[in-house]
Amino acid sequence: MTGLSNTAMPTFMRFFSDNDAPVHPAVLAAIEAANASDAAYDGDALSQALDARFSALFERDVAVIWMPSGTAANALALSLLCPPYGGIVAHEEAHIVLDECGAVELQTGGARLLTCAGEGARLSVDSLRERVARQGTGVHHTRPYAVSITNVTEYGLVYRPDEVSAIGDFCRETGLALHMDGARFANAVAALGCTAADLSWRAGVDVLSFGCTKNGAMNAEAVILFDPARAYEAKRRRKRAGHLLSKGRFIAAQLHAMLEDDLWLANARASNAVAAPLGRAAGTRLLHPVQANEVFLRLSPGEAAALRAQGFGFHDIGEGVARLVTSWHQREADVAPFAAALAAL
Amino acid sequence: MTGLSNTAMPTFMRFFSDNDAPVHPAVLAAIEAANASDAAYDGDALSQALDARFSALFERDVAVIWMPSGTAANALALSLLCPPYGGIVAHEEAHIVLDECGAVELQTGGARLLTCAGEGARLSVDSLRERVARQGTGVHHTRPYAVSITNVTEYGLVYRPDEVSAIGDFCRETGLALHMDGARFANAVAALGCTAADLSWRAGVDVLSFGCTKNGAMNAEAVILFDPARAYEAKRRRKRAGHLLSKGRFIAAQLHAMLEDDLWLANARASNAVAAPLGRAAGTRLLHPVQANEVFLRLSPGEAAALRAQGFGFHDIGEGVARLVTSWHQREADVAPFAAALAAL
Amino acid sequence: MTGLSNTAMPTFMRFFSDNDAPVHPAVLAAIEAANASDAAYDGDALSQALDARFSALFERDVAVIWMPSGTAANALALSLLCPPYGGIVAHEEAHIVLDECGAVELQTGGARLLTCAGEGARLSVDSLRERVARQGTGVHHTRPYAVSITNVTEYGLVYRPDEVSAIGDFCRETGLALHMDGARFANAVAALGCTAADLSWRAGVDVLSFGCTKNGAMNAEAVILFDPARAYEAKRRRKRAGHLLSKGRFIAAQLHAMLEDDLWLANARASNAVAAPLGRAAGTRLLHPVQANEVFLRLSPGEAAALRAQGFGFHDIGEGVARLVTSWHQREADVAPFAAALAAL
Amino acid sequence: MTGLSNTAMPTFMRFFSDNDAPVHPAVLAAIEAANASDAAYDGDALSQALDARFSALFERDVAVIWMPSGTAANALALSLLCPPYGGIVAHEEAHIVLDECGAVELQTGGARLLTCAGEGARLSVDSLRERVARQGTGVHHTRPYAVSITNVTEYGLVYRPDEVSAIGDFCRETGLALHMDGARFANAVAALGCTAADLSWRAGVDVLSFGCTKNGAMNAEAVILFDPARAYEAKRRRKRAGHLLSKGRFIAAQLHAMLEDDLWLANARASNAVAAPLGRAAGTRLLHPVQANEVFLRLSPGEAAALRAQGFGFHDIGEGVARLVTSWHQREADVAPFAAALAAL
Repeated sequence: MTGLSNTAMPTFMRFFSDNDAPVHPAVLAAIEAANASDAAYDGDALSQALDARFSALFERDVAVIWMPSGTAANALALSLLCPPYGGIVAHEEAHIVLDECGAVELQTGGARLLTCAGEGARLSVDSLRERVARQGTGVHHTRPYAVSITNVTEYGLVYRPDEVSAIGDFCRETGLALHMDGARFANAVAALGCTAADLSWRAGVDVLSFGCTKNGAMNAEAVILFDPARAYEAKRRRKRAGHLLSKGRFIAAQLHAMLEDDLWLANARASNAVAAPLGRAAGTRLLHPVQANEVFLRLSPGEAAALRAQGFGFHDIGEGVARLVTSWHQREADVAPFAAALAAL
Repeated sequence: MTGLSNTAMPTFMRFFSDNDAPVHPAVLAAIEAANASDAAYDGDALSQALDARFSALFERDVAVIWMPSGTAANALALSLLCPPYGGIVAHEEAHIVLDECGAVELQTGGARLLTCAGEGARLSVDSLRERVARQGTGVHHTRPYAVSITNVTEYGLVYRPDEVSAIGDFCRETGLALHMDGARFANAVAALGCTAADLSWRAGVDVLSFGCTKNGAMNAEAVILFDPARAYEAKRRRKRAGHLLSKGRFIAAQLHAMLEDDLWLANARASNAVAAPLGRAAGTRLLHPVQANEVFLRLSPGEAAALRAQGFGFHDIGEGVARLVTSWHQREADVAPFAAALAAL
Repeated sequence: MTGLSNTAMPTFMRFFSDNDAPVHPAVLAAIEAANASDAAYDGDALSQALDARFSALFERDVAVIWMPSGTAANALALSLLCPPYGGIVAHEEAHIVLDECGAVELQTGGARLLTCAGEGARLSVDSLRERVARQGTGVHHTRPYAVSITNVTEYGLVYRPDEVSAIGDFCRETGLALHMDGARFANAVAALGCTAADLSWRAGVDVLSFGCTKNGAMNAEAVILFDPARAYEAKRRRKRAGHLLSKGRFIAAQLHAMLEDDLWLANARASNAVAAPLGRAAGTRLLHPVQANEVFLRLSPGEAAALRAQGFGFHDIGEGVARLVTSWHQREADVAPFAAALAAL
Repeated sequence: MTGLSNTAMPTFMRFFSDNDAPVHPAVLAAIEAANASDAAYDGDALSQALDARFSALFERDVAVIWMPSGTAANALALSLLCPPYGGIVAHEEAHIVLDECGAVELQTGGARLLTCAGEGARLSVDSLRERVARQGTGVHHTRPYAVSITNVTEYGLVYRPDEVSAIGDFCRETGLALHMDGARFANAVAALGCTAADLSWRAGVDVLSFGCTKNGAMNAEAVILFDPARAYEAKRRRKRAGHLLSKGRFIAAQLHAMLEDDLWLANARASNAVAAPLGRAAGTRLLHPVQANEVFLRLSPGEAAALRAQGFGFHDIGEGVARLVTSWHQREADVAPFAAALAAL
């Protein structure tokens, strides 16, 4: 998606993506508070405290690998689950497939993404079973080693814990590992009202990309390893890929701030909340139910142009489909004008 | 180097590394000022303005690739200069050789680092000529395609423009590209009183890793492409390696702040200035002349222990050698106690 | 496809694949004749003579890289046409996609195979245009750099020169390189009665994998570079992948023997000739017209079992489809019994 | 080493390398005998029988991966012992370091070769201990995972079982795996009069590259896995690298022929035997004792030219040093003329 500069565009007009939103004041404050010198890389007090902090959130021992980007987090996570000669089953419209320029191939050393279809970028056990069965497992073939699902999906849909569990069970039966791209994990948890544990390891997820950048952080993601023994390799791969920032405390500080008083959930609830009225305004134009903070709707070129003429910014994703994304910082008043404009079409 | 947490350690006691120093207030201010939403990735106004900004600094058209870490910057730079089946000549103690966990191998697809020796981690034309001559150029051999030098070197020494030019001339004659790891490029320019152009492209450098993180930034480096045509590939490789952060404006803002009113030079002068008295205090213990912001001196285990007992923090680099690094934020008063302690040994 | 040992199975019963057929006596004789010591690797007289030999065949200057396997040849060829961050468009059932265990990913450093559908494993300009158009070309996307087609296709169909030309024209227009996997190129040329040039460079092919192993050789393939300037990189990559055999003269000798008196064409004609009666016997069971040396037909599990009970050997490719492949050494009498058995079903 | 064509040069004049020698008649006969169709790849009877055959030779269960080249065998072997972010300690003049164009980097996904010095290309426990100790083991460093030694070494020296055991013990203590490049393993065993087991797994070798091509085969090597559980990954990697030849029976047949009646030992004894008189003739010119089938001696440019003028062929390896290699097919009479010419200098 092209990103022309929109400095001048006020908040109520921007629906391009949550990935360009402001940083939450509490996160900025945490960054400033971390400014005193401390040990480099991840030797600082804040980084050292992350395992315990996330272990509390996830109600079990986890190892946390902070990362500066979601693409880096997904590639690292998958490199722990699949050898270079293996395959990773993912939806054909998954972010790792369409929007990461081969990051998985680089970090895994050439593993292949084995894609399958599914409404709303969701994978079902049936589609996975069919895809895995179709893939040969002989020495000539790219044998599947892992499955990667995105929750919230690329079309704003949410997998419930029982749906993830069904996929997790399938993975166990077939000897596959399960990764969840949780760039919007917070929005999914907020939408479902479940716990972070219910939607991840309790449902069979082995490694989770826990996103914060889209949810109020500046540049902080966390790879959550439900098997802490993976941390050794993960830390080598993070360094080797150039992601072990020397002033890591500034990444760790963001993660702590996001967890403090459940800011991650509050922000996700806020962005989800303002997507709903846009969805209602879209009415029959909606392609998918609005379950989190994304709205996909049909817009003719003329209608899209008319909305842009009124100053609204959003992405076309082709074939007369527009994507609107709300962010943690938008309030009802920020989306009302666009909702009205949609209803008026 | 292990980094145990040192939150409690006051500035005047910390000489571990400039890579754990505070962020300069002007950089923090610039980050805050960039908080309004803008286009994602590098589509924002600040990122878009970097080419012009650095072209002015370098007195020629350059393309700038912002990066979040120095390891990432070096690996990206070298991947543009050497094919997977080629070799990169570097000093055996270069950061890319000893401290980046194979980042160059990952980003280049397996190119090899061809090392040679040299006092103070400096390479000479003679050592390069000998090393290249020793390397076979047949199909069985790893043929050199590039040379990488570090300025300031890993032992705090500075290459002068004429010394870089001599290496640059050698590279031209032998068909090699020249990369400069400038994690402390600012300290070198400040020490030499030359221009950025004199120490880079005018001396034959093809690609420069322009460091800011050690010099007052939070997590911002710049790969300077003196041939802007390399930008296309560089941007693909940056994305593929997970370094195209979605809120890139926060990296770009740091680079602009560093260039504003030559903050990059002021900070480098400040850190260089306070290394001098430490060097004088070290006296005959010095291993290398103090040319920038690093001091290498001989310390017996007992002496090192005694200094640590007084609260001073620094790294041993083995064999009775200690490394002291000063930072942009330290003033004469901050180093005086350590200087006194050294002199008192 | 599993290969249980079939030593005891007579020729007239074996229809598994042409890749397990005997070596032609003339090829064996050439191998023996090459036994005198000569320069190692590709420095021997036979290897040195290959460029001229194939240049004559292809009616233009070509560079020839001998290779010991078809998988190696395809991966090498594609690594010359696509960078690690790029994509290669191929049919979803292409050999490079289904049967080479990620060889392309290894040799290219992680380039991605972008698949599209097509009857009989054939690609059309329309399908290519649609696939390329669907693929984003921004920095987040895997941009296509090459197209790979297989001739004879994986379902035994043949692209005519005009069909390849149409694809070649599309590639030129869109800035893509064109590779042809010619594991059965000889069978295609024999079936079409065209020249090798007509079906390759004159039709826009940049690099051709010219197969001999399935056609009477022991382990000899040739990567034909219609731009000889690619030879330098190709030779480095061949060595690096362990394919520069030290006694290369034994590979070169096979290629010379295959070209001598057009043995490559004679063998291909022979295997094509005996596929025809099998196709006729299959009658309405045929899935695809028999254009070369492969026959695909519907067989119920019971029918397949019945044929195997009579001693015939062939591969199931799933969903009630059997594949029969004829080889250069089979004569009418060798296929008659199976033809009769098919007709009798 | 350049290999100009030497078709016309008689056996008694050729001392370039054993890697360009003829194929032994028994091996050629075995190749011809294997010409009947059989299952493809390694599904044929000959390939299937290799594990048992080599298990008998090595007096324990082993898994055997046939390979078409030594470079391929070494790279595959090491990819099983070292992750992409790890290092492999080897002699700075090892074949994997100097003569394989980065094959190890390709197959391992970018692991680094950590070199150390040693007289005659031999590694000692002391040199290994020093090298490993020098290498950091933190996340920033390339941590050693394996050691690779060559026996016979690149300078024709032989490690005795007790010397290999000492290295094997060091590897066990430090958690490193041990690979042996046995391109001339047969020459070592023949020289020592020990068993294959004594010089490999009993001495702590985990994976052995068992060479045959230099010793009378055409293009057959064997990777011997003393832990058969490694076979699964090894077979995937062999296929992915394009080394799973479709008519694998022709490789397997060569290995069987080499083992039949200990032809591998007889050939090695023969080549060792004729190196001795050349060594005696070299006298004080010798750089290293002649322990196997290689002779390294000082020759002035004039002397080298004079010998070449008499028709003798050999390689200069630089700095006034010539390398002579004898082969399995040379008899006393074949080397006598060169011995005489050397003595006459």
